[in-house]
Parts: sequence; C-alpha cells; structure tokens
Amino acid sequence: MQSKTNRQWILSRRPEGDIKDGDLVLKESPIPKPGEGEVLVRTTYLSLDPTNRIWMSDMDQYMDPVNVGDAMRGVSSGEVVESRSAAFKPGDKVMTLGSWSDYYTAPAAALQHAPKLPGLDFRDIFGIFYLVGPTAYFGLVDIGAPKIGETLVVSTAAGAVGSIVGQLGKALGCRVVGIAGGRDKCAWITGELGFDAAIDYKSENVAAALKKHCPAGIDVYFDNVGGDILDAVIGQMNLFGRVAECGLISMYNATGIVHGPGNYPRILMKRLKIQGFIVIDYMARYPEAFRALYALYQQGKLKWKLHEVQGLENADKAVRLLYTGGNTGKLLVKVS
Amino acid sequence: MQSKTNRQWILSRRPEGDIKDGDLVLKESPIPKPGEGEVLVRTTYLSLDPTNRIWMSDMDQYMDPVNVGDAMRGVSSGEVVESRSAAFKPGDKVMTLGSWSDYYTAPAAALQHAPKLPGLDFRDIFGIFYLVGPTAYFGLVDIGAPKIGETLVVSTAAGAVGSIVGQLGKALGCRVVGIAGGRDKCAWITGELGFDAAIDYKSENVAAALKKHCPAGIDVYFDNVGGDILDAVIGQMNLFGRVAECGLISMYNATGIVHGPGNYPRILMKRLKIQGFIVIDYMARYPEAFRALYALYQQGKLKWKLHEVQGLENADKAVRLLYTGGNTGKLLVKVS
Repeated sequence: MQSKTNRQWILSRRPEGDIKDGDLVLKESPIPKPGEGEVLVRTTYLSLDPTNRIWMSDMDQYMDPVNVGDAMRGVSSGEVVESRSAAFKPGDKVMTLGSWSDYYTAPAAALQHAPKLPGLDFRDIFGIFYLVGPTAYFGLVDIGAPKIGETLVVSTAAGAVGSIVGQLGKALGCRVVGIAGGRDKCAWITGELGFDAAIDYKSENVAAALKKHCPAGIDVYFDNVGGDILDAVIGQMNLFGRVAECGLISMYNATGIVHGPGNYPRILMKRLKIQGFIVIDYMARYPEAFRALYALYQQGKLKWKLHEVQGLENADKAVRLLYTGGNTGKLLVKVS
Repeated sequence: MQSKTNRQWILSRRPEGDIKDGDLVLKESPIPKPGEGEVLVRTTYLSLDPTNRIWMSDMDQYMDPVNVGDAMRGVSSGEVVESRSAAFKPGDKVMTLGSWSDYYTAPAAALQHAPKLPGLDFRDIFGIFYLVGPTAYFGLVDIGAPKIGETLVVSTAAGAVGSIVGQLGKALGCRVVGIAGGRDKCAWITGELGFDAAIDYKSENVAAALKKHCPAGIDVYFDNVGGDILDAVIGQMNLFGRVAECGLISMYNATGIVHGPGNYPRILMKRLKIQGFIVIDYMARYPEAFRALYALYQQGKLKWKLHEVQGLENADKAVRLLYTGGNTGKLLVKVS
C-alpha cells in the first residue's frame, strides 16, 4: 500500500479574493521519516472547512497563517504507519490538525485517537464528531444559551455545522429557522431535519422572510456568514438576544475593510451579546459534546450528510465549493 | 415656596444632528394635581445624561422616545409636596424618571426613596449613586468581569460614569487607561483618581497611545463612545477580551447609518464578547452597587465631581455640554 513518494498541496501564493488555480500547487517529495517521539501517518480523509480560507490569508487570525511555500494545513484523519512513540502503534486510527498530504509526521502529543462511538463509521466520527459537532454544540449551548420556547436562527443551515446547530436547537425546545441557499437545501432542513422554517437567501428577501418566520422575534443567532444577513438578523433580535459568532464566510474572500453590523446601536438598545468563539478553545470539554451528540444520534434526532470528493489531487478545486455553497453536507476528501 | 405655575421643557421637534435652539421650548402651565395613588413632586435636581439625546430622537431605542409636544423626560430628584399614596408623605426626598419641569405628578410605584448613605449629601447620593454608580458598577463587574492584572480601558474617562469605572477597575486590581478630551481631564484622572495612564483623544493618536500605555494588550473595554475609538480599542484587544457597551455618544447625533467596528472579524479571531447593557435592567440589584460604591467611598477610593448648572431655564443649553465634552463631572441642574 505504501508508495515511495508523498504528495503535498503547497500554498504557493496568498489568494486574492476567490481561490484560483495556482494559489495551491501539488508537489511530490519523499515520504518523511518520524523523529524520536513522532509518528508517521498516512492520511485517510482530509476535512475541508471554511476556515481554510483564513489560514491561506495573512489577515489577523486565531492561529498563525500558513506560510507561503509550506504545505497547506488541514484537519485530517489517518492511520499510523510508523511510530516512535509508546502512545501509538501502526494501524491506530488518529485525527489531528495535519496537512493536505498523503503522509505527514507529527509529535505524538499532537495526535488524538478517534473517540469510540459504537455503530458509527470512522468517516462519520471524523467528519461530524471531531470538529463540526463540537463547534455546533459549544457555540449554541455555551454562547447562544437558548431557552425553551425561544427562536433560534442559523445561517448556512444546510452546511455541516449549521445543520447540527438546528437539530440541537430543536432538541432544546426552540423554534428553529434556517437560512440556506437554494430550494433543495431548504427542503432538506425542513423535511428531513425538522427545522420549523427555511429561508432561501438566493431567492428571498431575508429580512422579510425572517419577519414572517420569526413572529416573536429572534433570541439566538448562530452566525456562520456575517455581512448583510447578520444585519438583517440583528435588526429583528429581541431584548437580551445572543449572537454566537462562529464564522464570517461572506467576508473571508473580501479584500477591503469588513464592517460590523450596520445597525450597531441595537446592540446597546436591545442589550445584545455578540461573542466570537473557536472550537479549539473547548478541546478539554469535547467529551461533553460527544456525549450530547451521540445521545441525540441514538434517539434518531441527529442526521447529517457527507460530501466526499475522491483523491487528494482534487482538494484545491473541492475547497472552493465551500464559498459558493456547492457542497451538500460535510466536505471530505478521500485520500487513501 | 410653592409658586402658582409650573414650567416644563417641551420637545417641540426632534433635533437633527446637534441639539439646536427651538428643539426644546420652555412652557408654563398650571401645577398638576395628583390623582388617587399619585404624588406631586417639586424637582430639586435634574440629572442630564448622554441618553437624553436618544430619547429626543425617534431611533430604535430601549424605551419609547419622548413624543413631540410632550415634556422632556429626565432623571430627577425632588421633594414630595402632596401625596395621595400611603407610601410617601410631604417632605420625603424621592428620585425617579421624571421630566424637565418644576413639578410633576407620578404614581407612587414609580418613585424611589433616596438610599440612606450617612455622611453624603443628597445631591451626591442623587448624582452619583442613583444611576451613574450602578451603571459603572454593573457594566464593569457583570459584563467586563475584569481579573486582577488585566488591562481595562474606559472612554469618556473623566465623565460621570467613566471616572467611576476607572476607580472600580483600580480597586479590582487592573491596569486602568482612560481616554478623555483635554489635558485637564487627563491630569485629573491620573493625578486625582489614580488611573495608570490617560490618553487625550483631542491631541493624541488614540491607537498609538493605546499601544504605548497597554503594552500587554487590552482585556476589558468599557465603551461610552463607539465610533473610531471603539475600532482602535478592538484592534488591540487580547484573546477573550470583553467590551461592555454602555454608550455610543459619538453616534447619537449621527444622521446616517452607524456601522459597527471596522475590524469586525477580530471578534471571531480573538473570541471577543461585545455586550450592550442598560442600567435599568439591574434595578433589582442596586443595593449591591450601593454597598460596593459606598464601601469604596469610605475607604477614600471613590471620588467624583459634580457640575451644577443653576436654573431649569438653562437645561436645554446645559445638556449640549455632554456632546461637546464641555462638562466637568456629573451634570446636574439645580431646579429648586
């Protein structure tokens, strides 16, 4: 199974606006050797996530940007090929913040064993439970803190995180309204996932549709997009409303200044809270999220879709789907 | 003492931009009669506060705006002249959300007795402890939640609320940097009040001065102004920083759209929290603030200035001082 060469996507220049051909280039190199205390991993799945675009840029961000000339960073799963640490043995299934490559080495301390969730495929565990699920869970439960009977709005509602946020909101007794792009996505979140209403931002006036579907106003907004939709939601938030600021996908490809909400004084007048978070801050509490999500899954109340792209060589085209809404479900690349 | 007529400042039209002559007009009318369960109050002091400008406008706000043609609303203290409620008797000193007038009637339930704080003048109790002190206390303690050793920045730092915020911050073990307008104000907050540093926004580049005076970054910002200063502070906030959004005085006289921070993505990247609050939400907890502030005062760690203007007839000129930085200390009008 083990080929002699490794392939890596190298960030050859920082994208301006949308990612274009040549921003990332696929290069071959020898398979790296693990040093003392390190592990050599063969990638099985690579996770593609909206935050990848942030790492490619040199904007002010939550970890160092990827350096031009370095392998692109990515959340990945894999199998241990060679271990020089007592903590891992060949064949172990691991997850980590790795890179867009066939193989990579990492210190043992940087690798996590996959959680044991009986009845679930490794692909689902990696794709849904490793980062996406905890992101939805902590953002909603810790920051949004919804109460029974409140109205929750979530954007990119048919996306990996958004679709779980909405299902968690239903489980917590909220009215849940999702904002998504296109009729199929809207039909899926209301028909399959049990959202109370869906708004197709591509064909509807979002502010008018929110007015219709949130007759009692909005108490919690789980924001994945920023921009005009954030403005529209803030304009209809109730007293003491909360915005869990998870992502600003509408802003990542922007090249100029990115303004905050156009109706900022409402934050004061309505005593709103806007709070940003990044899931890695919650790593110590992941077992809490795994328990909650797995319990919901066992009750038949948690569904998801995976969108699998074949082959590492297609990763740079695939990641662009995230910024056009072209993926349906959690986006993964099958590497080996 | 009781004259036969009452004077009231009437909102005759909504100001556009700055308050101008004729926006408020002083009219005479008979002294009102209290109905069953009501109390007639003669105003002693009228409090002028930045929020007055909000009430004059028809912007989206936290209570109903004052209607054109009605008496201007204001926080006031007074003496009971006539009572048709068992809860008050003539001569009682009361505080309430009253109006800009010599006399007014109010339901007994809308009036509060002055808190008993031995050694303090009624004027100080009304001017500092009734609203200003609790605003500083709850915004800082509940929302800013500073920790020992953190850096706190406060704007309008020589103002009524800001000057108390800074002193509370020192008492809680923070490095405190105040932003104020002019050398005298800056000298007062560092020399008299014990702030660690002051920034004169009228003569200094605020971002550069923050860099100098906050070498470890900013953890808590108590915002009274919004606008460019908010941008500058957010640009230097540390991971998990908190903004207590108390006021947006730079925005109240604005006539166009009021954008949020120009560096909004930092809220996500640095996991910041921005939260608006209005002191009336904390009314049930005022005794906690009174205890804290009175204890500080007794320890000699809480100082303030009052800026007293004589005569109700001067209220409409006096209120404008708040938006030009012309007042030094808590602005009060002595009415009788």
